[in-house]
Amino acid sequence: MQERLDSVTAAIRPLDPAQGERAQARLDDLTKPKGSLGRLEDLARQIFMIQEGAERIGVDPARIYTVAGDHGVNDEGVSLFPQEVTRQMVLNFLNGGAGINVLAKTVGAQLYVVDAGSCGGGYDEHPNLIQAKIAPGTANLAAGPAMTREQCLEALLLGVRLADEAHEAGIRMLGTGDMGISNTTPSTALYCAFLGLDPQEVTGPGTGLDGDGVAAKAEVIRRGLQANARAMQSGDPLAILAALGGLEIATLAGLVLGGARNRQVVCVDGFISTAAFCAAQAMCPTVAEYCVISHASAEPGHAKAVEKLGLDPLLHLGFRLGEGTGAACAMFLLRGACDMFNDMATFSQAGVSSGS
Amino acid sequence: MQERLDSVTAAIRPLDPAQGERAQARLDDLTKPKGSLGRLEDLARQIFMIQEGAERIGVDPARIYTVAGDHGVNDEGVSLFPQEVTRQMVLNFLNGGAGINVLAKTVGAQLYVVDAGSCGGGYDEHPNLIQAKIAPGTANLAAGPAMTREQCLEALLLGVRLADEAHEAGIRMLGTGDMGISNTTPSTALYCAFLGLDPQEVTGPGTGLDGDGVAAKAEVIRRGLQANARAMQSGDPLAILAALGGLEIATLAGLVLGGARNRQVVCVDGFISTAAFCAAQAMCPTVAEYCVISHASAEPGHAKAVEKLGLDPLLHLGFRLGEGTGAACAMFLLRGACDMFNDMATFSQAGVSSGS
Repeated sequence: MQERLDSVTAAIRPLDPAQGERAQARLDDLTKPKGSLGRLEDLARQIFMIQEGAERIGVDPARIYTVAGDHGVNDEGVSLFPQEVTRQMVLNFLNGGAGINVLAKTVGAQLYVVDAGSCGGGYDEHPNLIQAKIAPGTANLAAGPAMTREQCLEALLLGVRLADEAHEAGIRMLGTGDMGISNTTPSTALYCAFLGLDPQEVTGPGTGLDGDGVAAKAEVIRRGLQANARAMQSGDPLAILAALGGLEIATLAGLVLGGARNRQVVCVDGFISTAAFCAAQAMCPTVAEYCVISHASAEPGHAKAVEKLGLDPLLHLGFRLGEGTGAACAMFLLRGACDMFNDMATFSQAGVSSGS
Repeated sequence: MQERLDSVTAAIRPLDPAQGERAQARLDDLTKPKGSLGRLEDLARQIFMIQEGAERIGVDPARIYTVAGDHGVNDEGVSLFPQEVTRQMVLNFLNGGAGINVLAKTVGAQLYVVDAGSCGGGYDEHPNLIQAKIAPGTANLAAGPAMTREQCLEALLLGVRLADEAHEAGIRMLGTGDMGISNTTPSTALYCAFLGLDPQEVTGPGTGLDGDGVAAKAEVIRRGLQANARAMQSGDPLAILAALGGLEIATLAGLVLGGARNRQVVCVDGFISTAAFCAAQAMCPTVAEYCVISHASAEPGHAKAVEKLGLDPLLHLGFRLGEGTGAACAMFLLRGACDMFNDMATFSQAGVSSGS
């Protein structure tokens, strides 16, 4: 499995700066003051480079994968919601009632639900469900590694497979989504491990802990970092991800890697997905060139993490839901960026005088 | 004309806080942690109140009016672009080549172009053009009033008429857009007059002035405020708008008033449109309840103005184009807010355990 993963990371190519210059020249020739469409211009330039200078750029069709997993660290009382909610929400996704169902529909993206590691057994078949349970939840990261190395590799390769299946179906933009009660805890632990942040400064309320609850959660994370000190000292991203992550998080990291390898645009959701991105970037820094951080999560540690990562989230809507809801909202802007780039008139076409 | 305007402002009703509580109760019962969809929840609550507790809320069909006007203050050299670009851009709008054409299409909003006061004569007929020229540009505000009181009233009532025509066509959401070379200058002057800001602190580069250009523009605005001191001292919003505004700006202020009177959702674009909003709010503070400030303009004075107004723009994309482009992008989020409110399952419907 390690070899298969290595072949994916080895095949991720940096974008060509010369194509970025071509995109910029075209953007500057469109009938608007230079740079006046701000982030939309940045997105168009990035997509043009990802799509290797295509005459017309595009992000449709788009597909969101909402990946579910449970967490042994839930035993430490780090969430307000009981663990069975992960499974209940998977059923809610399949019935079309969750936030991501609605917002994916609004933006016109496909939605697939992936069981990478929820507790309990399988689910009834459903055309939008991918049953790929690696384990029924992780072990408690506060006491030792959350996953074995093999489980983590399996999850990463599951994510690669999801990207590949989408690629074969002609999907040009992937959205990452997560569902997993307690999964802000492993995500926060991953930020601490990969970015050198302190649990005290990045631990937040998740779905709604109070001050005491947040302090207790930070302590759980601190214990987790100690219990997994050997993995952290190894400096091996895969060992760190296995020790502190989750099955849905590792799957999403694989989705990021696979998407970048396939030259797909990857729209990264919020707190959990950015932790997955962070792990993928540690394995292959070039993935960042293929990703857009869709929104700034209201979970307070997110701002510190993206600052450390040198990234600038696109939307600031105070979301803290996950599921891919922020990615879905951002997808509209990526579509708008493509349309702008493809369809605006140039100064000469429109007979408009350009600025002096 | 004054009486007709007064009857509009008198008919604008405050929203019912009891309906806001009903909306909140429904939002809190949807399958997500409370408040976890952030600004989308705020939008849904506001739209529910605007639509008086409708069983299903909605913002479609939506229509953007991009209103054109020229400015006598252009003689002072406050823009990099020659004045004829206003007319050239109107033709570009009619040919479908401008940023707003593309983004309105992406979001699925109707687009109408309105000539309220561009220089030169009329235009060839076009199904999406409303020819309502009040004057071929304003007078130079640096030397005296930009408009007569009658011109300003006429423009305000044109905006009301546009809102009414949209209302009759079933339009539930209006977008404001502007086109007018040099129009950051009157807009900045209006912020200074209505919000007590200093030209030195809010004047910015517009379409791309350098530091010296910005300083000279601030001086032009300072002269304009002196030349129109009597209007400012009167405290009469109409007199201030006439003295320092523009024909497109007054039309957009009327659109805001008319939209609020018709209980339409008004999606306010950036720097120019917010100045129009500011004038409308001075005439009738209740309009704010019907408006969404779609985005934070990159024009630096905008942040200071919205802070003074106590408003929080929805998007932060670094746009400084106008035309309604920020409003168009924000419309997608308002649609998403409605869909979320209408279509998400409740905890009991979905059989999901709610948080403790």
